[in-house]
Amino acid sequence: MSNCIFCKILEGSAEASFVFKGDKVTAFMDLNPINKGHVLVIPNIHHERFSKVEEDISGEIFSVAQKILRAIENSEIKCEGANLFLSDGEIAGQEVPHSHLHIAPRFKGDGHRMGFSGTDADEKERSKLEAVAESIRNQL
Amino acid sequence: MSNCIFCKILEGSAEASFVFKGDKVTAFMDLNPINKGHVLVIPNIHHERFSKVEEDISGEIFSVAQKILRAIENSEIKCEGANLFLSDGEIAGQEVPHSHLHIAPRFKGDGHRMGFSGTDADEKERSKLEAVAESIRNQL
Repeated sequence: MSNCIFCKILEGSAEASFVFKGDKVTAFMDLNPINKGHVLVIPNIHHERFSKVEEDISGEIFSVAQKILRAIENSEIKCEGANLFLSDGEIAGQEVPHSHLHIAPRFKGDGHRMGFSGTDADEKERSKLEAVAESIRNQL
Repeated sequence: MSNCIFCKILEGSAEASFVFKGDKVTAFMDLNPINKGHVLVIPNIHHERFSKVEEDISGEIFSVAQKILRAIENSEIKCEGANLFLSDGEIAGQEVPHSHLHIAPRFKGDGHRMGFSGTDADEKERSKLEAVAESIRNQL
């Protein structure tokens, strides 16, 4: 994808501070870190949406993320916890159309808050949860 | 872990609406869905923190999450995008001390917003990003 900034980073035509370069996935520092140590892990093959990423690559994204989180925890970077998140689709907050996982170190007093504005109380009943689970199972 | 609600679900002594039961990971409906179709994927072996999860299991969490996201997209559940997130540690918003990944379907007008309160401008300089990347690489 010639106009994708992450593909340009992978090709070497855009700058990045690399953490990991693998056959399937690559990791580099987020340009807009919420905290020091904020890393992105991306599949080397361009896909906008996570469901389109090749199956052998999706797991690799998370296992590399785990290795990187351990490395952050073992480094001098302030990390008392972390938020790992993947925003899939514009409606979900995805800003770069090349699927990517964030690893954001967290610490007390950093001023951030992870969370959503409330739950959908109508969907909490067990009968509804069972029906939704069945809908999903039927497609697995 | 006898007092862990997710372990109780895995043992069958607490109720859940299951989506997937595997050797390494299990998925069921979140009891407090932010939207219809909100699923949790957990490792079958109890660990509070993600970095402690066995290496062959961490990748499986994400690859099963991808299968479930595809199933949600193929079902009648409203899903124009999704937020996948893992809150690691209390400071990061982790509420149940058994590591778990959220899959939350999103759609226009659902009233939710994914994001953090701003970035750390001090950490945006390339020289700082390079230094942090090196700190992490040194621990990989």
